[in-house]
Amino acid sequence: MAGPLITLTTDFGRVDGFVGAMTGAIATIAPDSTVIDITHDIPPQDIATGAYLFNTTQRYFPAGTIHVIVVDPGVGTHRRPIALQTESATFICPDNGVLSYMFADAGLRVERDPFVMGQVGVPTGWNAFHLKDPSYWLHPLSTTFHGRDLFAPVAGHFAAGVPLAAMGTSVVELTAFALPLPREVPGMAIGQVMHIDRFGNLITNLRQAHLPAGQLTVEVAGHTIHGITAAYQDSVYLLALIGSSGTIEIAYPNANAAKTLGVAKGAEVRVYSAR
Amino acid sequence: MAGPLITLTTDFGRVDGFVGAMTGAIATIAPDSTVIDITHDIPPQDIATGAYLFNTTQRYFPAGTIHVIVVDPGVGTHRRPIALQTESATFICPDNGVLSYMFADAGLRVERDPFVMGQVGVPTGWNAFHLKDPSYWLHPLSTTFHGRDLFAPVAGHFAAGVPLAAMGTSVVELTAFALPLPREVPGMAIGQVMHIDRFGNLITNLRQAHLPAGQLTVEVAGHTIHGITAAYQDSVYLLALIGSSGTIEIAYPNANAAKTLGVAKGAEVRVYSAR
Amino acid sequence: MAGPLITLTTDFGRVDGFVGAMTGAIATIAPDSTVIDITHDIPPQDIATGAYLFNTTQRYFPAGTIHVIVVDPGVGTHRRPIALQTESATFICPDNGVLSYMFADAGLRVERDPFVMGQVGVPTGWNAFHLKDPSYWLHPLSTTFHGRDLFAPVAGHFAAGVPLAAMGTSVVELTAFALPLPREVPGMAIGQVMHIDRFGNLITNLRQAHLPAGQLTVEVAGHTIHGITAAYQDSVYLLALIGSSGTIEIAYPNANAAKTLGVAKGAEVRVYSAR
Repeated sequence: MAGPLITLTTDFGRVDGFVGAMTGAIATIAPDSTVIDITHDIPPQDIATGAYLFNTTQRYFPAGTIHVIVVDPGVGTHRRPIALQTESATFICPDNGVLSYMFADAGLRVERDPFVMGQVGVPTGWNAFHLKDPSYWLHPLSTTFHGRDLFAPVAGHFAAGVPLAAMGTSVVELTAFALPLPREVPGMAIGQVMHIDRFGNLITNLRQAHLPAGQLTVEVAGHTIHGITAAYQDSVYLLALIGSSGTIEIAYPNANAAKTLGVAKGAEVRVYSAR
Repeated sequence: MAGPLITLTTDFGRVDGFVGAMTGAIATIAPDSTVIDITHDIPPQDIATGAYLFNTTQRYFPAGTIHVIVVDPGVGTHRRPIALQTESATFICPDNGVLSYMFADAGLRVERDPFVMGQVGVPTGWNAFHLKDPSYWLHPLSTTFHGRDLFAPVAGHFAAGVPLAAMGTSVVELTAFALPLPREVPGMAIGQVMHIDRFGNLITNLRQAHLPAGQLTVEVAGHTIHGITAAYQDSVYLLALIGSSGTIEIAYPNANAAKTLGVAKGAEVRVYSAR
Repeated sequence: MAGPLITLTTDFGRVDGFVGAMTGAIATIAPDSTVIDITHDIPPQDIATGAYLFNTTQRYFPAGTIHVIVVDPGVGTHRRPIALQTESATFICPDNGVLSYMFADAGLRVERDPFVMGQVGVPTGWNAFHLKDPSYWLHPLSTTFHGRDLFAPVAGHFAAGVPLAAMGTSVVELTAFALPLPREVPGMAIGQVMHIDRFGNLITNLRQAHLPAGQLTVEVAGHTIHGITAAYQDSVYLLALIGSSGTIEIAYPNANAAKTLGVAKGAEVRVYSAR
């Protein structure tokens, strides 16, 4: 993995040549960089899922990584292409909320109903830019594929040494959506299914800190699970454990919990103490 | 992306180990090269789609890139394995038409009914070779997987410095199929859907230059679209715009146009002037 | 492909960020290494398919490659994380049989009913270790994703120069399952479908050495194929040939044999001599 690391997270799939074209554009501008695919299978135009999956993954990359995230239903309209430099990494993406979970982990939250858009202020020590200078883009600039024509080239130029400030103008606010937050009532935490992974596991937004004390019971879609187990094979039936993102996860050993239960993203999950 | 760049375009999918074996074969011979996947999800044995998608992507790679394209229903028969060096890149593939769109962009066209095979002459400045020397292949050579046993090793040896002329004999003609070309009648251009992308967008072969002057109307599968818009979000309903390959594209914002309209590849698209 | 080569074979799919997180963890620890994906589409928890596909592919990588294989239904339980160094490569994986085909090729076989688990002895010249030292893992160690938290970091540290012996304790036996072996009766070899590839080809466990002499007939699912052909296009109907792994393979030219015949993995295949 020679030179600067550039990750790609998109909804472009791998069937077409979209990802290849982005990688080629980067290779042309920054031949010493290394491109790593995070995922290209974000559901089409699903900014919320892209934001969620990107954030669970980006924290495992080394400091200084350049992350390009393109889930961009507004491509070709007035939405701003942005670059954000933090103390740990650089993020290049449309300004459409796709960094919302990363922002929230840094304490930057929008206070609205879940998934409603708002603005967060860029904190001291971070630098954000509206990417405005077309001299760092491919031309003719398409109106439908800024991943190839704008975001990949800007990432390439940055990897090759061009400062972000040369490619855009400073901005002080960025777009984010409000996160769906767990509710806590006495003896109970109420969250939701944030993501269903490849195995059909139901990943929730309920962290250890949200949970009541005592012997716990988990409810989802009319099913009741007694106790939190440690590993997938600690039960032969439906189970709940703390998953790899640190939140309550509901799984069915050697089977697909989402299909078995008929549960979709957004479903409510309750954890309460039997006491 | 240290050393020579080698791209792979195949119909091997990613479920089996086919792509891994090709990459391993290259790594063994040319450890300093970098392998980039364009796509491995060309529909099985679909040379025409492979030729189309490869050509939309390959132009974004830097000069000197080595492209390996393996959509190869004739593997193990008399079809020739070839290598072609142009002023911009090297192409290693079966001689079965998979470079036809790349040839056409260079002015090399077969004049026949669409998709019927013919020959094009290798122009001055390009060098083409029939890869004949088995000392640059893996052995035992399978009859079913020349991607791993022949094309990848030849790409590796070329990346490692072996001239193409050492690995084969010069040829003066290469196989291509005739492209489906738009027809123009007074006030109207008639093309077809060349590709349906991951988003369900219908990508046609109608370029700006084919279109009549004036206010345009687009017809596909009994649906009529008034006007050409600039971006996907410029309509809440079916729209037409100039896509990222420079041709008319029909899309349904935040939905799948192909599924919504029930349109398949090859469908006729008409663009006419209301004047 | 600068520095040490690390391959990844998993059942994590590419839709979530699992593979990205593993790659990021490696990049953080071993920035000079190169990560290559063999496949991430092993069916969930299917150790036998993972073992089979990994082994058909790993032999094409250069000596010294570090292979990480994570099909790990027992994650978080007592199953041992192991590392094995042979004369040709290093293997890092759960001790759950996922190396069984690689072992068998080295003469290490379990004598039991097919797919039943047993132990094989680590031969002289190989070194195997139970990975026990948590100082080489990510923390907090999840109970559900040791691919990211244990196997990838250990591979990274090994690529960066830490000896395996520093990361675990020596073991003398490793887990393997018994392979389904062909039976030979006079004039006939009876094997089974080991894998159905992307094209729907039926790949069996019948090698040339198993086959009777003379003009051969192949039977599968009530269908009879006369003769072994050389290439996919040597027939317009169902055919049998020696595939790229050196075993009898049944294919349907330009179609999907598995779907056409309704054959699944495990189906019996008979080859007999007409004499």
